[in-house]
Amino acid sequence: MSHRYRIAVIPGDGIGREVVPEGVRCLAAAAQAHGFEFEIAEFDFACADYWLRHGEMLPPDWREVLGGFDAIFFGAVGWPEVVPDHVSLWGSLLQLRRGFDQYVNLRPVRLLRGVRSPLRDRQPGDIDFLVVRENTEGEYSSIGGRIFEGTDRETVVQETVMTRIGVDRVLRYAFDLAAARPRKHLTWATKSNGISITMPYWDERATAMAQRYPDVTADKDHIDILTAKFVLRPQQYDVVVASNLFGDILSDLGPACAGTIGIAPSANINPDRTWPSLFEPVHGSAPDIAGRGIANPVGQIWSGAMMLDHLGEPAAAAQVVAAIETVLDERPEVLTPDLGGSGTTEGLGTAIAAEIAA
Amino acid sequence: MSHRYRIAVIPGDGIGREVVPEGVRCLAAAAQAHGFEFEIAEFDFACADYWLRHGEMLPPDWREVLGGFDAIFFGAVGWPEVVPDHVSLWGSLLQLRRGFDQYVNLRPVRLLRGVRSPLRDRQPGDIDFLVVRENTEGEYSSIGGRIFEGTDRETVVQETVMTRIGVDRVLRYAFDLAAARPRKHLTWATKSNGISITMPYWDERATAMAQRYPDVTADKDHIDILTAKFVLRPQQYDVVVASNLFGDILSDLGPACAGTIGIAPSANINPDRTWPSLFEPVHGSAPDIAGRGIANPVGQIWSGAMMLDHLGEPAAAAQVVAAIETVLDERPEVLTPDLGGSGTTEGLGTAIAAEIAA
Ligand SMILES: CC(C)[C@H](C(=O)O)[C@@H](O)C(=O)O
Ligand SMILES: CC(C)[C@H](C(=O)O)[C@@H](O)C(=O)O
Repeated sequence: MSHRYRIAVIPGDGIGREVVPEGVRCLAAAAQAHGFEFEIAEFDFACADYWLRHGEMLPPDWREVLGGFDAIFFGAVGWPEVVPDHVSLWGSLLQLRRGFDQYVNLRPVRLLRGVRSPLRDRQPGDIDFLVVRENTEGEYSSIGGRIFEGTDRETVVQETVMTRIGVDRVLRYAFDLAAARPRKHLTWATKSNGISITMPYWDERATAMAQRYPDVTADKDHIDILTAKFVLRPQQYDVVVASNLFGDILSDLGPACAGTIGIAPSANINPDRTWPSLFEPVHGSAPDIAGRGIANPVGQIWSGAMMLDHLGEPAAAAQVVAAIETVLDERPEVLTPDLGGSGTTEGLGTAIAAEIAA
Repeated sequence: MSHRYRIAVIPGDGIGREVVPEGVRCLAAAAQAHGFEFEIAEFDFACADYWLRHGEMLPPDWREVLGGFDAIFFGAVGWPEVVPDHVSLWGSLLQLRRGFDQYVNLRPVRLLRGVRSPLRDRQPGDIDFLVVRENTEGEYSSIGGRIFEGTDRETVVQETVMTRIGVDRVLRYAFDLAAARPRKHLTWATKSNGISITMPYWDERATAMAQRYPDVTADKDHIDILTAKFVLRPQQYDVVVASNLFGDILSDLGPACAGTIGIAPSANINPDRTWPSLFEPVHGSAPDIAGRGIANPVGQIWSGAMMLDHLGEPAAAAQVVAAIETVLDERPEVLTPDLGGSGTTEGLGTAIAAEIAA
């Protein structure tokens, strides 16, 4: 009897709907090649459908509806012409991350063979690090408000909230990761010279955690200079751990340095496995290019590989990543425009699925 | 009778002490060439001296001591082995910015002739934009604190504070700047999809301000994708206006894309001229390379040019910038290591001063 994984698929909006089918195609190919099965349930929790009918992004019982799946495979949500982004995102993706306590957002940054970095002289191997983003608290709080509305005294405040439990658990995850890698190097992003209360606390906890990992070389960089160093010396990074906002920034900038946001994957992980984890590309719904069939599906497919890893199918996961790299390197005719080609979403997805099957 | 400007000079710590004399050397050369004078008073408000003696970064009457000068020429402050950065910075630079209501931090990003961009195929002219950073409020608040210290419930909060007055005045400055430039293009940095209270407010005020500038093409980018676009498509930016934190990040990343942080200048401006403005390089005190005489003085010298502009000496300012560019382009033997050379701080400063005098 082969193993059967139950997956909730949420294509979402915009290019999410275009890349998710390619992700599913590649997952199916991997399942076939490795002798397991997927049972897939698709949900229309997006601006374009569920919100238009219900005025909400998720049903009230979303926790029961989605909580029993082995994982969630997510495209992208957002259609700003119809729903303001902060409403659609807080109503779905950010809600799921927090509600399912997916406190680690793991985002690999790697310059793959066949992809051209916008940085001079950078070769595959030069850029290969992991961004570990805190995913439930920090700058993404929902506390705050507005006073003296409409007057000259109008003032708006929003809290950044860090808890010892929240900070320590993501640091521990990142140090564990670093300890298991050959270079054993960890950088924590901070801004403790300017953000004078929460960021010195983040430093304090990171410094304490570093004591417990004597084998890991740990240092800190302020976020401003860290973004500069991603461009000037990307080869020096191995594991980079950051608050919610800083992790968000670094995990878009990193993939840009490695060629394109279109290939970057992410795993929103609940390491305790009390709730399903969620796998989605780093890119968004990209309304500007949606509907043209040219979105790069690699971020979605690679996110599928991260899901396979999480489900306990590391051989299948490795094969998907290898297939991605082979196609990017050897099949320039199927590459999408962001990779310098003139191929389509479906063409690139089909080529990778065929490579997995081969 | 030639005009005489009264300048307070604060070299500060680390490489601040090494680059400030080169800045002063070039200012003197410009004054001589253009027939005005400087009266310079130097202050030891730094970790290395004032703090060691007094346990404070500035005297209690700093407002009276410094308030009467025409401008402040500042190096860099910070010596983390002795004083935690948030203490030294909040006690000096951040205090001065706020106390003298220098609500605009203007930071030009330009790829100069003679400088090699880490980005492939980028030529001078491809990168030429202005970062306008809000400089008194936003994420750099001093409100917040810690509760349940030392327990599992330990929680730390910090407020981001935006006021209508504070947001509108920096937006107005940025729109005015954009309106006066040939491309008339403005981008505001935001993160309203994730930071759901303050950032939608920032968008709301920017949208309202844009209505008043029909000639300016204004659009927004979320900070994550904006950092990616600095690397992928820097040529598309003209004026970028951002909150305190986002402006901090963009004004390190931008100069890195344009070759090195070492050349980037900044002007902390009080546009109402009720208090002196402050001119400093974007880089910090860089304890790691201090004392070796290899720091790049161009950021300090270019900041001096911005000061000349502010004082009403635009011809002298333009000549300093032209001299910088000529030396960078034609004198590779004097370039500092960050520019790929093996020259010294003094050698590069002296060469630029000579070029100004020529
Ligand atoms: C030193 C630090 C507090 C400062 C800032 O964040 O403003 C610096 O990075 C800058 O950009 O001027
Ligand atoms: C869409 C947005 C709310 C989201 C975030 O900021 O987390 C996205 O940028 C990401 O990185 O997943």
